[in-house]
Amino acid sequence: SRSIRLAVIPGDGIGQEVVAQGLKVLTAVLPEDVKLETKEYDLGAKRWHRTGETLPDEELASLKEHDAILLGAIGDPTVPSGVLERGLLLKLRFAFDHFVNLRPSKLFPNTATPLAGRPDIDFVVVREGTEGPYTGNGGSLRTGTPAEVATEVSVNTAYGVERVVRDAYERANARPRKKLTLVHKNNVLVYAGHLWKNIFDKVGQEYPEVTTDYLHVDAATIFLVTQPERFDVIVTDNLFGDILTDLAAAVTGGIGLAASGNINPTGAFPSMFEPVHGSAPDIAGTGKADPTATILSVALLLRHLGHEEQAARIETEVAADLEARGDAPRTTDEIGDALAARVAG
Amino acid sequence: SRSIRLAVIPGDGIGQEVVAQGLKVLTAVLPEDVKLETKEYDLGAKRWHRTGETLPDEELASLKEHDAILLGAIGDPTVPSGVLERGLLLKLRFAFDHFVNLRPSKLFPNTATPLAGRPDIDFVVVREGTEGPYTGNGGSLRTGTPAEVATEVSVNTAYGVERVVRDAYERANARPRKKLTLVHKNNVLVYAGHLWKNIFDKVGQEYPEVTTDYLHVDAATIFLVTQPERFDVIVTDNLFGDILTDLAAAVTGGIGLAASGNINPTGAFPSMFEPVHGSAPDIAGTGKADPTATILSVALLLRHLGHEEQAARIETEVAADLEARGDAPRTTDEIGDALAARVAG
Ligand SMILES: CC(C)[C@H](C(=O)O)[C@@H](O)C(=O)O
Ligand SMILES: CC(C)[C@H](C(=O)O)[C@@H](O)C(=O)O
Repeated sequence: SRSIRLAVIPGDGIGQEVVAQGLKVLTAVLPEDVKLETKEYDLGAKRWHRTGETLPDEELASLKEHDAILLGAIGDPTVPSGVLERGLLLKLRFAFDHFVNLRPSKLFPNTATPLAGRPDIDFVVVREGTEGPYTGNGGSLRTGTPAEVATEVSVNTAYGVERVVRDAYERANARPRKKLTLVHKNNVLVYAGHLWKNIFDKVGQEYPEVTTDYLHVDAATIFLVTQPERFDVIVTDNLFGDILTDLAAAVTGGIGLAASGNINPTGAFPSMFEPVHGSAPDIAGTGKADPTATILSVALLLRHLGHEEQAARIETEVAADLEARGDAPRTTDEIGDALAARVAG
Repeated sequence: SRSIRLAVIPGDGIGQEVVAQGLKVLTAVLPEDVKLETKEYDLGAKRWHRTGETLPDEELASLKEHDAILLGAIGDPTVPSGVLERGLLLKLRFAFDHFVNLRPSKLFPNTATPLAGRPDIDFVVVREGTEGPYTGNGGSLRTGTPAEVATEVSVNTAYGVERVVRDAYERANARPRKKLTLVHKNNVLVYAGHLWKNIFDKVGQEYPEVTTDYLHVDAATIFLVTQPERFDVIVTDNLFGDILTDLAAAVTGGIGLAASGNINPTGAFPSMFEPVHGSAPDIAGTGKADPTATILSVALLLRHLGHEEQAARIETEVAADLEARGDAPRTTDEIGDALAARVAG
C-alpha cells in the first residue's frame, strides 16, 4: 500500500489556520489506499522566542525523512527582520536544494483582478531557488557608523543556472503554447545576466519546438500588467522571481490564491509546498485568511508525488468553487470545508 | 542676463525624435531673457559602430561644462547588451554622481492605465543612482565553461544611502501628504537592507512631520497595482527603483509619459534628464513615438535649474493637452507642436 510521509510546518500568523484547511482537503482527496502520515513541527516565531532556535540540526534531519513538507507561513513583527526568513525558510530551501521554485499564475473565474478587462492569464514562473542574491553572501563593515559599507553578493553558477533552465524548458515543452521567457537584467548585471542568457540559448537548442523570448525585469513588470497573456513559462533568478510572482499574484486575484512549490526535482531531498503569501499577523485568528493558496499548494504537492489525478481534481474544484461562490465573504474554515466536500465528491 | 548651457545627447532609436520635441517645447517656454545654448553630442550605437567608443574622456569633460544634459535614449539591438548601458548611460550617471534618480508618477487624464477604476495616482520615486547592484562590481570565473561562477556585488554605503534618504525626506516634507515609504528587501538582503532601514529611521527623527512606512519590494509591487494611492514619496535602491518605476509608468498611462531626472543636488556636476523609456528601435522613424515623457523631463530640468514657473507650466499644459486630445493618434511632431504652442501661449 502506498503512503505519504508529510512533514507539516504551520509556522506563524495565519499559517496554522490555512495549513489546517490544506490538510483537510488533502485527506479528503486521497484515495483510500494511500496512507497519510503527518508529523507537525513547532518552528517559527514562538519557538524562537522560547528557545532562540530557528531550525536546529535535529529538526532538519528529521524533516529530511519525509516525502514532502507542507508549510504555512513564516514571519512575525516581534522577530527582527531576516531572523526567521534566513534562519528557517531560506535555510530549508537551501538545505534541501530546492532549485525549482514553481509558481503558477492563473486568473480564476470570479476573482478580483486590479486589471481592467480581465485578460486571459495562465503562466507559470520557474524561479531559481538556491542562488542569486539569496545566498546570504554579503557583509557589513564599520556597521552602524557613518563609514559603513554593506554588500550583498549575487552568486550564479553554470551548474545552478543550467539545471533550472533545463527544468523550465521541460515545462514549457509540455504545455500547449510551448513558450519560454527568460527574465533578467543583462544590460546592467552583465556577468550574471550573460551567464543566464548564454545557458538559456545553449539549452534552447535541445528544445527546437519551444519559442523563446528575453525580457529585462523592468520591462517584464510592464508586460505583466499590460499584456499578461504573452507569458506561458517564465524562468528567472531568485530575486527577480520573488518580485515577479508577487506582482503576478496581485494581477491574478490576489495573494490569497497564489500557490508555490519549492522543488528538488532529483528527489534527493523532500520538496516543500507553501502559499506565496506571508503570515499576515493582522488577520491571524479572525477567520479571514483565504486557505485557497495553501490548498492549491497541496495540489502541487500531490502532482510532485505522482498523484496527478488528485492534483488536477483540486485545481478543477477550486475553479468551480470560485465560479459558484456568492458575494458573502466566507471564513477560512468554510472555504476549506467547501473544497474538501467538492474534492471528495 | 541668464543663460542655460545645455548638452544634448539624442542617442539611439526614437531618441533623436523625442529630443527634438523636448527642445522645441523648451525653446517655447523659456522667457526671452534666458539664453539657451545647446551643444549636441554624437554618442550611442552609431558612434560605437564607427569608432568603438562609448564615452571618451574628452566628451565627458566637455559635457561637464554644462548646466544640464538632455538625453533621449540609449541602446540598440546591434550592440551587445550592456555595452552602451554600462559604457555610456551608467557611466554618465556614475561620473556625474547622479545620486538622486527622480521619477514622478502621475495618472494624467485621458490616458490608458491597465488598472480598473482609474485610481488616483500621484507619487514620486527617489531612486538611488550611484550604488547598489549597479556598481558594476562583479565578475565571472571560468567563463563559458560548465564550471562558470558569475557574481554581482551590491555595494551600499552609509554615505550614499544617507544622502539620498535625506533628499527623499526633504521632498516628502514639501508635499501635502508628507509620506515617505522605504522599499527594500531587508528580510533577505539583511546587510544592505538593515543599513537602509537604520539610516531611514535615523534621518526620520529629523522630520517628525513625515509619516514613514517600510515595504519589501515584492509587496510594493502588489500595492502599486492594488492601492497605488497609498504612495506619496518612495525611496529605494538602484535596482528596486528601476523595477518599480517601470511598473509605475505602466500603471500611469505607459512608458510614453514617464519622465526622469538623474540629479546631483550639490551642483558639482550637471544633472541629466531623460524619459524612462528606451530607444524603441521598432518604432524609430515612424512618427509614432510619444515625446511627452521627454517634454516632462524638460520640466524637471527647468525645475532643477530654478525655473519653477516654466516647469509647472509644462506640466499643467501636458495635463490640459491630454484632457483635450481626441481619439485620433497624433504623430511625434504633432504632439510636440501642440505642447510648444500651449506653453508659449
Ligand atoms: C519571506 C521571504 C524570505 C520569501 C522570499 O523572498 O522568497 C517570500 O517573499 C516568498 O516569496 O516566498
Ligand atoms: C537602460 C538601463 C541601463 C536603465 C536602468 O536600468 O537604469 C533603464 O532601464 C532606466 O530605468 O533608466
